[in-house]
Amino acid sequence: MAIGTNQMRKFLNDPAAVVKDSLKGLAAAHPDLLRYDVANQIVVRKDAPKKGKVALISGGGSGHEPLHGGFVGLGMTKAVDGGAGVVHIVKNYTGDVLNFKLAAEDAADEGIKVTSVVIDDDVAVQDSLYTAGRRGVGATVLAEKIAGAAAESGADLAKVTDTVKRVNDRARSFGVALSSCIPPANGKVIFELPEGQIEFGIGIHGEPGRRRGTLGAASEVVDVMVEAVVSDLKAKHGSKVLAFVNGMGGTPLLELYLIYGEVDAKLRKAGLEPVRNLVGSYITSLEMAGASLTVLELDEELIKLWDAPVHTPALRWRA
Amino acid sequence: MAIGTNQMRKFLNDPAAVVKDSLKGLAAAHPDLLRYDVANQIVVRKDAPKKGKVALISGGGSGHEPLHGGFVGLGMTKAVDGGAGVVHIVKNYTGDVLNFKLAAEDAADEGIKVTSVVIDDDVAVQDSLYTAGRRGVGATVLAEKIAGAAAESGADLAKVTDTVKRVNDRARSFGVALSSCIPPANGKVIFELPEGQIEFGIGIHGEPGRRRGTLGAASEVVDVMVEAVVSDLKAKHGSKVLAFVNGMGGTPLLELYLIYGEVDAKLRKAGLEPVRNLVGSYITSLEMAGASLTVLELDEELIKLWDAPVHTPALRWRA
Repeated sequence: MAIGTNQMRKFLNDPAAVVKDSLKGLAAAHPDLLRYDVANQIVVRKDAPKKGKVALISGGGSGHEPLHGGFVGLGMTKAVDGGAGVVHIVKNYTGDVLNFKLAAEDAADEGIKVTSVVIDDDVAVQDSLYTAGRRGVGATVLAEKIAGAAAESGADLAKVTDTVKRVNDRARSFGVALSSCIPPANGKVIFELPEGQIEFGIGIHGEPGRRRGTLGAASEVVDVMVEAVVSDLKAKHGSKVLAFVNGMGGTPLLELYLIYGEVDAKLRKAGLEPVRNLVGSYITSLEMAGASLTVLELDEELIKLWDAPVHTPALRWRA
Repeated sequence: MAIGTNQMRKFLNDPAAVVKDSLKGLAAAHPDLLRYDVANQIVVRKDAPKKGKVALISGGGSGHEPLHGGFVGLGMTKAVDGGAGVVHIVKNYTGDVLNFKLAAEDAADEGIKVTSVVIDDDVAVQDSLYTAGRRGVGATVLAEKIAGAAAESGADLAKVTDTVKRVNDRARSFGVALSSCIPPANGKVIFELPEGQIEFGIGIHGEPGRRRGTLGAASEVVDVMVEAVVSDLKAKHGSKVLAFVNGMGGTPLLELYLIYGEVDAKLRKAGLEPVRNLVGSYITSLEMAGASLTVLELDEELIKLWDAPVHTPALRWRA
């Protein structure tokens, strides 16, 4: 790109190569964890395939980083088949579902056992611009972590598949946006949202939500998010939950922790007990200002799998 | 705050209470690691004071999250005096230096041994709007991690102090911005920067840098950053370094990894070997679009301290 052709507020070389360039950088930063397969433009675990362990494959469009490449690594396994089968974790978007279906058929032709779970945790809308049924959002991150731990522990294909399903069944999400992002490919906003306005129920591709309104206090915004999620989840009173406050990319951590404080208090008021949490920008829409809440109803097994060691670029801990 | 008074793209209750509200949320999310001292409006390690261990204290204005509150915890110790003395890690800004000086005098009056190290790693400008001498930026994060590990290992006050100094002496930084941020208190940009323009050498408070220019390819921007840092650091050919690509808050991880790919290649070309790295938004200016590069020349001791276990909200790993 010649100097002066970049009229965006973005660090890019060739805008058409931004995903490739970024994946190359991800691989350069984490050579101990993953490798970038240039021909197929995918990121896989460095030590894949792991013989005898179920592999998880997730994916979708770019612009949601660290999802998905940032979650490749130990305990959040994504790899090629190691003989024990492969689980596809698919966000419910028409294009994703179609492409994963084709990939599963190809794999089946080669004798690889593939199961597929569609994530559809977003309570905001029943159908949407790119979706038949609910959209798949924050629960994807939790499913990848938890099912990754199950796969790492040696669980079989049926068990890992069931774990993804259980996470999806027990998780609900709701997102809000205060701005659009600007995809590098064309340099234009996806939608117009004036300052001081909020879109309730936004999707991660900027799809419209339930309604627009005047932006009030964070406390009022969180009221809407918690009510939407809790009323749909219908967890038993006193349930232990994981509360995931996710930034859409352009919202500072200062605000995300402010939101978490409100979420924690309001969930307790609603009779739920947040015993685990995740606060940060993990499933994003580039630099969109906004946040989403995902609540996962836990049980002892899910807590154990959540706490299990993980070592990926974006999530890393040991029990 | 009444509905409709928030004309920003921000999640806030009372704009004057945003820091308090955010720290409350931080403490609610990480009760295992830290507690929020409401009266003093500070975050301290939950298990502080650690008897016999040197305490680290850092701080400064808000808006740079996760710095500093996000780095409170095991292996990045900040706590009250446990009898072995206290090290102040001070970013070189006139206000910070003055306030830490007053605090050190108060502590000395109470018989607490305090040392103080001023971080001034930013090569962009010799003096600046709020600084006599170079500004303190990215090296602060590295110094807190590395000196935190030294303190955790039981090093004495002189040794921990020396470790902070060594990190500062061996680290250089340079930042660029593609937009201003908007402080919540007044809702206005700090400076105007048209789309397609870049400020080279920006400070974390939006202070002017060396010059403005037309935004070219990321590769060209990284050329400037690497040249500025490497020429000032004057590391021996073949030196092992830690390369820290930091987002200013509003730049997506997609772009930060793209930048890291360029940085990694260009450092190698300059005869340095990046053997450790950190990529993400760790010392920010709210939602400013921009990035900074910090290069730290390593030795075996610094590598060991960098790799040592850490458990804080924003950095977490075990060796």
